[in-house]
Amino acid sequence: MEKRSELYRGKAKTVYTTDDPGLLVLEFRNDTSAFDGEKVEQLDRKGMVNNKFNNFIMAKLEQQGIRTQLVEVLSDNETVVKKLDMIPVECVVRNYAAGSLVRRLGVEEGTALDPVTFELFLKNDALHDPMINESHAVAFGWATAEQLTEMKSLTLQINSILKQLFADGGMLLVDFKLEFGVDADGNIVLGDEFSPDGCRLWDAETRKKLDKDRFRQGLGGVVEAYEEVAARLGVEL
Amino acid sequence: MEKRSELYRGKAKTVYTTDDPGLLVLEFRNDTSAFDGEKVEQLDRKGMVNNKFNNFIMAKLEQQGIRTQLVEVLSDNETVVKKLDMIPVECVVRNYAAGSLVRRLGVEEGTALDPVTFELFLKNDALHDPMINESHAVAFGWATAEQLTEMKSLTLQINSILKQLFADGGMLLVDFKLEFGVDADGNIVLGDEFSPDGCRLWDAETRKKLDKDRFRQGLGGVVEAYEEVAARLGVEL
Repeated sequence: MEKRSELYRGKAKTVYTTDDPGLLVLEFRNDTSAFDGEKVEQLDRKGMVNNKFNNFIMAKLEQQGIRTQLVEVLSDNETVVKKLDMIPVECVVRNYAAGSLVRRLGVEEGTALDPVTFELFLKNDALHDPMINESHAVAFGWATAEQLTEMKSLTLQINSILKQLFADGGMLLVDFKLEFGVDADGNIVLGDEFSPDGCRLWDAETRKKLDKDRFRQGLGGVVEAYEEVAARLGVEL
Repeated sequence: MEKRSELYRGKAKTVYTTDDPGLLVLEFRNDTSAFDGEKVEQLDRKGMVNNKFNNFIMAKLEQQGIRTQLVEVLSDNETVVKKLDMIPVECVVRNYAAGSLVRRLGVEEGTALDPVTFELFLKNDALHDPMINESHAVAFGWATAEQLTEMKSLTLQINSILKQLFADGGMLLVDFKLEFGVDADGNIVLGDEFSPDGCRLWDAETRKKLDKDRFRQGLGGVVEAYEEVAARLGVEL
């Protein structure tokens, strides 16, 4: 497998083609962004930490029967993944209220959600990733009703698996965002990444924030927090 | 039945108690408001037109087996209704893209939606009626999953009935908002109102707007348009 040209440059990752049309390379960069790219900084080691963290989580999910795009680690900040036809709809599950839910619905941060909430957002920077629902996704052709049902079911399964994993490391998995794609056989496969950039993690005792909210809120110690999370889970950095 | 004290003053209607604890009086005022009450005007005859219009539509829906709060007309701008325990979630169905859908999702006004979209909004002025989904309503106790399922089913049934009614009058029912409540027997009952204040109606040929968008957009002839809609449907004013 040989890395070829840049296909797409996102806010924190770059995607490269390879000599195999079914494989891509994800490069995790040190760029850290928030507020639709309005705040951007380079944070040393972040690309490496997120690459290794993501691969650790994807491997755990694969062990539990969840299809992911992971193929193999290529370097400290690069991973080979299956090429997917990405569905432009983000799936968000929340175990505790935080972030936009608190602002939009006027509820208190940290409120335990029972049942957990499940939200869809259109992946569209120009529109600031608006919240949508199943009927929008179907009416505008962003996903089929069957794909949405499976994405929801997979997201809730993944929540059960990861909530326990983080609990074992003394952390609360507050919320997270997933993106799915369709592989060559038509399967719904987990794509993109799972890292502290796209989830909220709090220390279970002190509720100290261990995720990208440290960056959004200017709390400092961003990558140090990510490394602490990795250490608690046993991710080798 | 005797009208007693003011119970609640909304942006366009006032609700009064009566000597019967199971009955209320809705008074349709001439106040016309938009943008969360930022733009307010008094429009002559609007209260009367909306009261008669609403009663006409509610009676049509009752004939088709839909439970509504309508009891009887009291005066030109007052109606006796069943007291309901209102569910603070608005149901919106859209047959064509317009309004907030166009702004939020970047789609073209007038796009036919197939399937139609169905949205929930939290009725909360201070939060500007944010869009929510079923999981929020259940997690925060605004409605049960069973109530939401029935509200959706009723809204789609009402859409089928009213789309045809307006089509027979040469109009497109673009979208509308409904509010439901629970009666003393635990039934989900259509409450609030159905009038050109809470729906979009376009002439089927010219797409001339015949609803509150004339007020929002300063197009003039607001009540005249409502009266035209009433005349086309055979509502006696």
